[in-house]
Amino acid sequence: MTDRLYLYDTTLRDGQQTQGVQFSASEKVEIARMLDDLGVDYIEGGWPGANPTDSEFFNDAPASRATISAFGMTKRAGRSAENDDVLAAVLNANTRAVCLVGKTHPFHVREALGITLEENLENIRASVAHVTRQGREALFDAEHFFDGYADDPDYAVGCLKAALKAGARWVVLCDTNGGTLPHQVGEVTRAVIAAGVPGDRLGIHCHDDTGNAVACTLAAVDAGVRQIQGTLNGLGERCGNASLTSLIPTLLLKAPYAGQLQTQVTPEGLTGLTQISRRLEDILNRAPLREAPYVGTSAFAHKAGLHASAIIKNPATYEHVDPSFVGNERVIPMSNQAGQSNLRTRLADAGITVERDDPALARILDLVKQREDQGYAYDSAQASFELLARSQLGLMIPFFEVERYRVTVERRRNALGQRISVSEAVVVVGIGSERMLSVSESMDDEGHDRGPVNALWRALAKDLGPYQAAIDDMWLSDFRVRITGGGVDASTRVIIDSADGQGRRWSTVGVSPNIVDASFEALVEAVRWKLLRDGVASA
Amino acid sequence: MTDRLYLYDTTLRDGQQTQGVQFSASEKVEIARMLDDLGVDYIEGGWPGANPTDSEFFNDAPASRATISAFGMTKRAGRSAENDDVLAAVLNANTRAVCLVGKTHPFHVREALGITLEENLENIRASVAHVTRQGREALFDAEHFFDGYADDPDYAVGCLKAALKAGARWVVLCDTNGGTLPHQVGEVTRAVIAAGVPGDRLGIHCHDDTGNAVACTLAAVDAGVRQIQGTLNGLGERCGNASLTSLIPTLLLKAPYAGQLQTQVTPEGLTGLTQISRRLEDILNRAPLREAPYVGTSAFAHKAGLHASAIIKNPATYEHVDPSFVGNERVIPMSNQAGQSNLRTRLADAGITVERDDPALARILDLVKQREDQGYAYDSAQASFELLARSQLGLMIPFFEVERYRVTVERRRNALGQRISVSEAVVVVGIGSERMLSVSESMDDEGHDRGPVNALWRALAKDLGPYQAAIDDMWLSDFRVRITGGGVDASTRVIIDSADGQGRRWSTVGVSPNIVDASFEALVEAVRWKLLRDGVASA
Repeated sequence: MTDRLYLYDTTLRDGQQTQGVQFSASEKVEIARMLDDLGVDYIEGGWPGANPTDSEFFNDAPASRATISAFGMTKRAGRSAENDDVLAAVLNANTRAVCLVGKTHPFHVREALGITLEENLENIRASVAHVTRQGREALFDAEHFFDGYADDPDYAVGCLKAALKAGARWVVLCDTNGGTLPHQVGEVTRAVIAAGVPGDRLGIHCHDDTGNAVACTLAAVDAGVRQIQGTLNGLGERCGNASLTSLIPTLLLKAPYAGQLQTQVTPEGLTGLTQISRRLEDILNRAPLREAPYVGTSAFAHKAGLHASAIIKNPATYEHVDPSFVGNERVIPMSNQAGQSNLRTRLADAGITVERDDPALARILDLVKQREDQGYAYDSAQASFELLARSQLGLMIPFFEVERYRVTVERRRNALGQRISVSEAVVVVGIGSERMLSVSESMDDEGHDRGPVNALWRALAKDLGPYQAAIDDMWLSDFRVRITGGGVDASTRVIIDSADGQGRRWSTVGVSPNIVDASFEALVEAVRWKLLRDGVASA
Repeated sequence: MTDRLYLYDTTLRDGQQTQGVQFSASEKVEIARMLDDLGVDYIEGGWPGANPTDSEFFNDAPASRATISAFGMTKRAGRSAENDDVLAAVLNANTRAVCLVGKTHPFHVREALGITLEENLENIRASVAHVTRQGREALFDAEHFFDGYADDPDYAVGCLKAALKAGARWVVLCDTNGGTLPHQVGEVTRAVIAAGVPGDRLGIHCHDDTGNAVACTLAAVDAGVRQIQGTLNGLGERCGNASLTSLIPTLLLKAPYAGQLQTQVTPEGLTGLTQISRRLEDILNRAPLREAPYVGTSAFAHKAGLHASAIIKNPATYEHVDPSFVGNERVIPMSNQAGQSNLRTRLADAGITVERDDPALARILDLVKQREDQGYAYDSAQASFELLARSQLGLMIPFFEVERYRVTVERRRNALGQRISVSEAVVVVGIGSERMLSVSESMDDEGHDRGPVNALWRALAKDLGPYQAAIDDMWLSDFRVRITGGGVDASTRVIIDSADGQGRRWSTVGVSPNIVDASFEALVEAVRWKLLRDGVASA
């Protein structure tokens, strides 16, 4: 006997309350497609009328299996639902579902709205009835429900019942300020169900202000709610909403949920979760959180020497689930704490077999440690690690040498009096007995300067003689900069992500107090790795 | 009637299992001091013998109220505790407490150790007895306890009882793989206590692999354990350990814990929490997590227009606790969703009073929106926001104008054949009717090149005529770079943190596809803000 559990995603609405997050309409469409592929039941697209981008999204909303929902608030007092322009804008988005937030806490009814408790009840009733009369599915988000319940349980539950009686498909218990703890969410939810609100009409909406949003959501499910609201990667105001990215794998993979509750997310859909999570951070231009449950790059990384050696014997020793279920990967990172067995595993991953007693292993570990002390980060730059190991093992191919470079950035006025900048780079490379001198500016197709690192990359990639075909097939996909050390010892670490036409992606690292120099080191390593991986012969 | 709850911090040991984290001995000393000031009961410093830095820390451990603890593992089979060199190294650190991890899960006893269940019990007994015979306080970390209990509850509990009988002060239930959910932790903990292990001898150690480490810890406390193990900022292997930074405020500020449980953390100590959390990230050279419960810069940031206007009336409307209790601050950020009331509040914070109906408010909002679309981030660069607002309000002082600059970076061999880099910058500035031309290299005291941004800063700061005194009192404290957009629209956002001799810290932003140009924009803004804040008159 399984119960249906509905997933209501609010990444595009509540997720947009994250500091620094503002989706474009096309980004919203892309995220909605990912959510639909994943298998959520509802996609809340925004608040039509409150934000032009939100209105644009509803106009262009993609066809989806999931129900698209528009968010708004219950009508204001002193006018009818039909005459409330804010509510009208929400309904004009023509979504199958409409979710209206309303008050259930007497303090807020009086303090924020300045109306009577009965007026607020009437606002809920009339607004929900207005939505359902138009043939839409109505949801009522009970704002500050847990605080309201603590203050006046009869009134808070009365608000839920008013919404249900007016035709709401769902009433949703919102812990708006995020301060309620899991055992309290469980107790109150059980009390609400005991008071006559059926669990299969009840949703939960939690925030992470105490670090318990996921646990509060699970506590409500344990108590009987059958809709959960959350966001991808836990986006949301302040500390964020409950993370569906953390909740979905737990619900699908772990007892007592797996087998007892049914969602629309399939095992195949679940294997796309890591990619969806990272793509979202790409869209947001943020680095994915390494420690994110299930989907982080560290989530299955075994740094401790003892753990790593046990994992190699049997992954079940130190893994709570198989990383492939969520599309993630096991990582045995290099680090000061890693032993030679980790190192050999990692070299084997790069296709390099080394005997257990090869003295080069100790040399490589020492060098890694020494360079990490200088600011290099080989955990984040596997390609550079591979080059370092190959050089110690005598497996490096001396493709080319950079003799010198010079890059100039100038900012001045042009003949028209406009401020422009111009970057120019000269790179001199030796290949065998040949010496190649290349120069490049850094103008894009529209004549805009792209800066010194771009100019250096163009000059380097302009003429690498026999290696040109391999280089033409690669490009730089990301660039990250971090200041390491501090004060007089401050240095710059640059990590460059590269990609090629064969679908490979690799990362290299450069370190120097000079950001241009650090960038150039990472650029050169990216090229060397590509030549190596393409099996190019040294000229 | 209050119960004593003990806080056991393992930032320096388990926290160091975080990918990319490796503390130096002096950093460990600094963190230990912060933990002692905060009021934790135990500071686990590392595994002496396993890591040179850990051994060094124990030699130099600061005097502390907190009990310093050394970590190790139970003795191996086939030798006595006295003859186990790994255990001897742990005891040689001479700490008041010693925490030994051991197996309690038959699968691991057989799979990882390859010994009998009885041999494992004997290893626990003999090791704990050896520690207590030396007058130390012994703790037993029961590795994989919850998995072991699910498999064979009698054996798992038998291991705990063996440790207690041998003299352990504490036995600690470890959810090593992090897969156990809060309600399971609660149930098993209650069963363990019912089986005769007293709650005031029982600790809990959770990991965040399902996003529930904090909730699992609270569930164990609810069930009766009286020691919690965790780390600052939730550092730790894979997804991290339970975050003491999240747990401590909940335990001190919220029912049922506040008033019922007593720790050594005082309300004054609690107000230092935000600073400790951020200082730790400084040491790690990581950006603090904005969304961190209680201590994140977004934790009390109210972006939604409706929330922000209610907060201004009464903070209790949308805040679960007062941010000052944890040393944090309320933030009303600028953003596309912020209304004019947010804007006026933020301007008031900067000392600028604007009338409610000033048409400049709408212009500023439009400009912020337009520039944020280009990649500017005013939430993170309040000083640049203030300059933008002042320019729209006619309150900007035209201190100086940059006519042009040029910067060159060259990498080549010097006369000795060594590879060196040299950066040189020329900046031409107009001040009133005067024109100042400055040139600077970027060599530090040891003759090493610090790069183009440093060269530009030196050239700019070398001669600003009448403003020189103000500039001499400021320095650049951090520099952050982020690629925004992507593909042909990629741009670079640089945020520079500056500080001055009067204890001020401020952040400015520059955006350009050219990283040097973006840096220069942020540098110039940093100088302008400093002149403004010092009340310098325009020349």
